[in-house]
Amino acid sequence: MNIDKIRAAAARLEGRARTTPLLSSPFLDEIAGKPVFVKAECLQHTGSFKFRGAWAALSARPAALRQKGVIAYSSGNHAQGVAYAAALHGVPAVIVMPADAPKLKIANTRALGAEVVLYERASEDREQIGAELAQARGLSLIKPYDDPEVIAGQGTTGLEIAHQARAEGLTEAEVLVCCGGGGLTSGIALALAAETPAFTVRPCEPEGFDDVARSLATGQIQRNTKVSGSLCDAIITPQPGELTFPLMQQHCKAGIVVREDEVLKAMALAYQRLKIVVEPGGAVGLAAALFHSDKTSAQTLIAVTTGGNVDQDIFAQALATLP
Amino acid sequence: MNIDKIRAAAARLEGRARTTPLLSSPFLDEIAGKPVFVKAECLQHTGSFKFRGAWAALSARPAALRQKGVIAYSSGNHAQGVAYAAALHGVPAVIVMPADAPKLKIANTRALGAEVVLYERASEDREQIGAELAQARGLSLIKPYDDPEVIAGQGTTGLEIAHQARAEGLTEAEVLVCCGGGGLTSGIALALAAETPAFTVRPCEPEGFDDVARSLATGQIQRNTKVSGSLCDAIITPQPGELTFPLMQQHCKAGIVVREDEVLKAMALAYQRLKIVVEPGGAVGLAAALFHSDKTSAQTLIAVTTGGNVDQDIFAQALATLP
Repeated sequence: MNIDKIRAAAARLEGRARTTPLLSSPFLDEIAGKPVFVKAECLQHTGSFKFRGAWAALSARPAALRQKGVIAYSSGNHAQGVAYAAALHGVPAVIVMPADAPKLKIANTRALGAEVVLYERASEDREQIGAELAQARGLSLIKPYDDPEVIAGQGTTGLEIAHQARAEGLTEAEVLVCCGGGGLTSGIALALAAETPAFTVRPCEPEGFDDVARSLATGQIQRNTKVSGSLCDAIITPQPGELTFPLMQQHCKAGIVVREDEVLKAMALAYQRLKIVVEPGGAVGLAAALFHSDKTSAQTLIAVTTGGNVDQDIFAQALATLP
Repeated sequence: MNIDKIRAAAARLEGRARTTPLLSSPFLDEIAGKPVFVKAECLQHTGSFKFRGAWAALSARPAALRQKGVIAYSSGNHAQGVAYAAALHGVPAVIVMPADAPKLKIANTRALGAEVVLYERASEDREQIGAELAQARGLSLIKPYDDPEVIAGQGTTGLEIAHQARAEGLTEAEVLVCCGGGGLTSGIALALAAETPAFTVRPCEPEGFDDVARSLATGQIQRNTKVSGSLCDAIITPQPGELTFPLMQQHCKAGIVVREDEVLKAMALAYQRLKIVVEPGGAVGLAAALFHSDKTSAQTLIAVTTGGNVDQDIFAQALATLP
């Protein structure tokens, strides 16, 4: 895994992924006590950065393999990213989802052109279902994060940040990234280490699900004691990836942990001051910038808002935190 | 008023105004029955396109005049655009607002560095208050739309649309613009007529406040019978401007009128599918694209979402239209 892979992914994503804007507001700077920029990756196709990794992985496969189609396990942003990237490539996509996933997510994934295969969480093994389908149809798996091409695709976000930050005249910054399995975080960290070494990345996680922060602190992969029950469900994984963790170890500063009430406030401020819709898991980095800037050492912060796929009842809960 | 003025404004706005993204979603294309792009000008500084015109007008003034400061009448987006543009220029701004304007808007305008002067709607004449202040302090007025430099500033949105549409491979389109006094609409129309003549503009207005549509249809300036009581308050003006109307006559196709329930649905779909926050007045063009595409003749539509400054109770009302 190296910067050339990210640059190659960027070339393949050119004109396909959106160059999402770098936003800011004097009202947010005031709250943080230092300038805060927001990389609004929630404005990416399908409403999250996951489209980048899916496109990068698909476009890297040999044509004969790609034509047979792809398979992914996800009920969330990865599902939609893979479905849409496959549709644009004109190849079949099968998404394996739990039967109790929200109906809207199932409907959206189907509407993006994918075949959705449902399984019963309690009685069925999704890996087995997926493996049988893959073998029968020649489908190849797109992992959510622990894959070099996926990391490379997500890392193109880092190339854009470096370019846009230079245009803003920034010479140093800490980049605060919402972190689940670490695909986006490690990709951005690798890109910035090559492009703008004065920019460093901090993984940001919700309280109780801080496996990456603890893994970085101890130097060994740590697991979360639970993997559900968080408002920030989109970024909850059991532990950092086998590929992503060493990259984060090499390139990231210590993680920052935020509370759920801070996440809701960050979502509300993104609505009020930036006019963007951010989901809870996607607002963790912004919450860290706004409410934990004392844990940062750079003069400028860049928070990546990674996704915007949030149900309206939870969004209303966030808005209710506004005066 | 001509294209050179818009190009000159674009040069002065370079690196100051945001290049707002051109967004899209297959879900919106499906509703409209043809491809729909959204120029997300709600992501502009201060949450609306008004920053462009304010910056363009300020930066066009002779330095000696500019240094004395500016004055504007507004309780809305124009107030915030002028306040922030003046602050970035380091010159004083006085904003004359009704005393019963929402406290948050008054507070925001002050926080952006302006001096807010309140007047009583019932008993005081804001023009007189403004004129006295202007004379006493040497302040110069920035009109909301009927000023060549303001039109030129708003017209830079049109230059960006032309550039971004070319990058998307579009060769013809109708551009649907929310229309109040017509500064943005006429500026975009003039820019597109010069840059991409196969793109034409349609002004879009809410039912009951369709002065521009009626003026274009009759060839003479028509007035609205009422100037308040609309959900889309930000774009309600008594009649088209003296400067903007002839430009719209020359360059625009017939207007489109939308209902308030369509505006709320468009806001909800912008939230759900594009992850942007749009205010009612700013969603009128998108409502026209989604629900009145039968009144358009181009194969592709581009809706400009002009602002995102919406109170959370009205935004919640829009979200409640989602299933």
